[in-house]
Amino acid sequence: MLEQFKIPDKDRILVSESALRKSVTDIFCRMGIPPGDASEAADVLVISDLRGVESNGVSNLLRAYVSDLRSGKLKADADCRMVRETPATAVIDADWQLGVVTGPTAMRIAIEKAKKVGTGVVTVRNSGHFGAIGYHAMLAVEQNMIGVCMCTTWITELSVVPTYASKPMLGTNPIAMAAPAGKEAPFLFDAATSTIAGNKIRLAIRLGAPLLPGWVADRAGNPITEETLVHDRHQFCLLPLGGTRELGSHKGYGLMMMAEILSAFLSGGLPYFLDDTVGVKGFFAAYDISAFMDILQFKANLDQMLEELRTTEPAEGHERVWYPGLPEHEEILKRQANGIPLHAEVVEWFRKTTSELGLPDLETLQNEGCQN
Amino acid sequence: MLEQFKIPDKDRILVSESALRKSVTDIFCRMGIPPGDASEAADVLVISDLRGVESNGVSNLLRAYVSDLRSGKLKADADCRMVRETPATAVIDADWQLGVVTGPTAMRIAIEKAKKVGTGVVTVRNSGHFGAIGYHAMLAVEQNMIGVCMCTTWITELSVVPTYASKPMLGTNPIAMAAPAGKEAPFLFDAATSTIAGNKIRLAIRLGAPLLPGWVADRAGNPITEETLVHDRHQFCLLPLGGTRELGSHKGYGLMMMAEILSAFLSGGLPYFLDDTVGVKGFFAAYDISAFMDILQFKANLDQMLEELRTTEPAEGHERVWYPGLPEHEEILKRQANGIPLHAEVVEWFRKTTSELGLPDLETLQNEGCQN
Repeated sequence: MLEQFKIPDKDRILVSESALRKSVTDIFCRMGIPPGDASEAADVLVISDLRGVESNGVSNLLRAYVSDLRSGKLKADADCRMVRETPATAVIDADWQLGVVTGPTAMRIAIEKAKKVGTGVVTVRNSGHFGAIGYHAMLAVEQNMIGVCMCTTWITELSVVPTYASKPMLGTNPIAMAAPAGKEAPFLFDAATSTIAGNKIRLAIRLGAPLLPGWVADRAGNPITEETLVHDRHQFCLLPLGGTRELGSHKGYGLMMMAEILSAFLSGGLPYFLDDTVGVKGFFAAYDISAFMDILQFKANLDQMLEELRTTEPAEGHERVWYPGLPEHEEILKRQANGIPLHAEVVEWFRKTTSELGLPDLETLQNEGCQN
Repeated sequence: MLEQFKIPDKDRILVSESALRKSVTDIFCRMGIPPGDASEAADVLVISDLRGVESNGVSNLLRAYVSDLRSGKLKADADCRMVRETPATAVIDADWQLGVVTGPTAMRIAIEKAKKVGTGVVTVRNSGHFGAIGYHAMLAVEQNMIGVCMCTTWITELSVVPTYASKPMLGTNPIAMAAPAGKEAPFLFDAATSTIAGNKIRLAIRLGAPLLPGWVADRAGNPITEETLVHDRHQFCLLPLGGTRELGSHKGYGLMMMAEILSAFLSGGLPYFLDDTVGVKGFFAAYDISAFMDILQFKANLDQMLEELRTTEPAEGHERVWYPGLPEHEEILKRQANGIPLHAEVVEWFRKTTSELGLPDLETLQNEGCQN
């Protein structure tokens, strides 16, 4: 994580994984989500916090999900169903289900199809936000498959200015892929196709951290090329990965549209700027490695590349070379041992919300033995 | 195209599409490629020149292919065959076939599978360079499908420094996707996952054009942050899309590894830095749109987005907003009417090569009626 996104010590409260998991599950159950789904939904969020990806953890997302379940925008009793199917493909209409429930469901259908015909592709429309989509890609890894997931972003975050345009028209449409290794931590790539994720803006506001040159554009589409503070989520627009045309923003813009077409259009939807009534759209693909080659050989091969990258000499001024998924894997081990750092303001939200719902608060859960 | 990559007027020779097509086909035939394959291989290269993507056109690639066919590195009589197959997947060992023949073959197999089970995924190892992979993705579009293609890059171009590393370890691994529209030009994204494609360096040398800040690193992995001239292909290393970590190079690096894993590892190969004996590797996927939704509705939906992007107001200082595939589509129409601009040095290569092979030269073909 970039230095400026660390929570300052004075605002930092450590919470155990099990207390956080229990509290989030309790909250979802109290919102009417069936217990199995609630526990999986909690897993999607807590794993993100364990991985150090706060932007997709409980801090930003849980309150949004709870607020949308309370307002009825998301349905606890959604009629999520498959609307079209072939041996290798399916389309799901999620009926505004909690996306952290729909996502794992969609990936599991893709996995089942891949077991039968080698690959499975499932698209989803009308869903809530999927959480960190790397989670769903990782479900394929547990089955010795490669998982790919792309999606459109949360309906309130139409925030990216296409290259040369004067206004935001697209979401930050992330792309994720996970692949199983043998001894090494799995390859896990999960990134917005914008220079930074939308949730980073919320984090920057909460932490008073500056935005770096090239990260954002003004509201007329002009890239901002100096460091700048942000006070309001709608003060700036985001730029596609690359930042400026000269540095390749047309590539970030193209990847963003790729995710949009595979998620929104291939599930029968439209992008938000044309239709803001159809929820989040997603694309979930599973490739069964054994359909292509021996799985043990694949893992040994991938280990060889990942180890070589991990142990290669870093450039001057850097400590190590990473591969996607490695720093997050190491962070999981640290946070499982030491606890998950939450901002005091987030802990206060938990206190208030659990109190309203008549649930034990995080501190009580921790004292009652929900230690790590 | 960026201004500095235009061929200067004094070095610019216009050649008709049909003369170029005939000459390239003749050359491939004389190299022992069967006539049908030779004509398709020529199509892959000439379409790239028509689209204005010189970096993947005849200028850089034909001479490399001819040189490798002459040296025996590529085989005109390759025993290209399927080595593994399931209903939705296949693996091809290309036996060092000309990649601009293997690529279309692989995509057609993916398309046939998608017709039967909804999607098809074909991986390839031991191939020659695939040319512009957007070409292969477009073959799916002709069948009302979405085409996706990724690959590793030409064996001599191990050129990209992973984020924080001190040496080049990866290729520029491009990602392409094409999707059919109704009235609009098809969506066609095709880009290297590095800030710039490796072939751009060759173009910059030929044209004496400067490299822009953030495009390359020195040989120790440090990003160069000012404009710089390039004299030698190995003077600099490339950077992943994003350029620096702060601007998202870890995302470009992750996408590059995604292409590497899907292409190299899923075809049973390894990356070049671990094994430089297995040729180019590729990933070809076709998604049959009618497995997901009504094809006419899909095209109407995509038209709506593409038109809206194309007609949106540009930011100050810019003439228009593009979508991926639009400028190239317009360039095709222009170049089919006016001819394809080649650098004088490239025309000289044609003259020399056709003379050596006992073939009519470009000028003769043009005078003989190979007009546009």
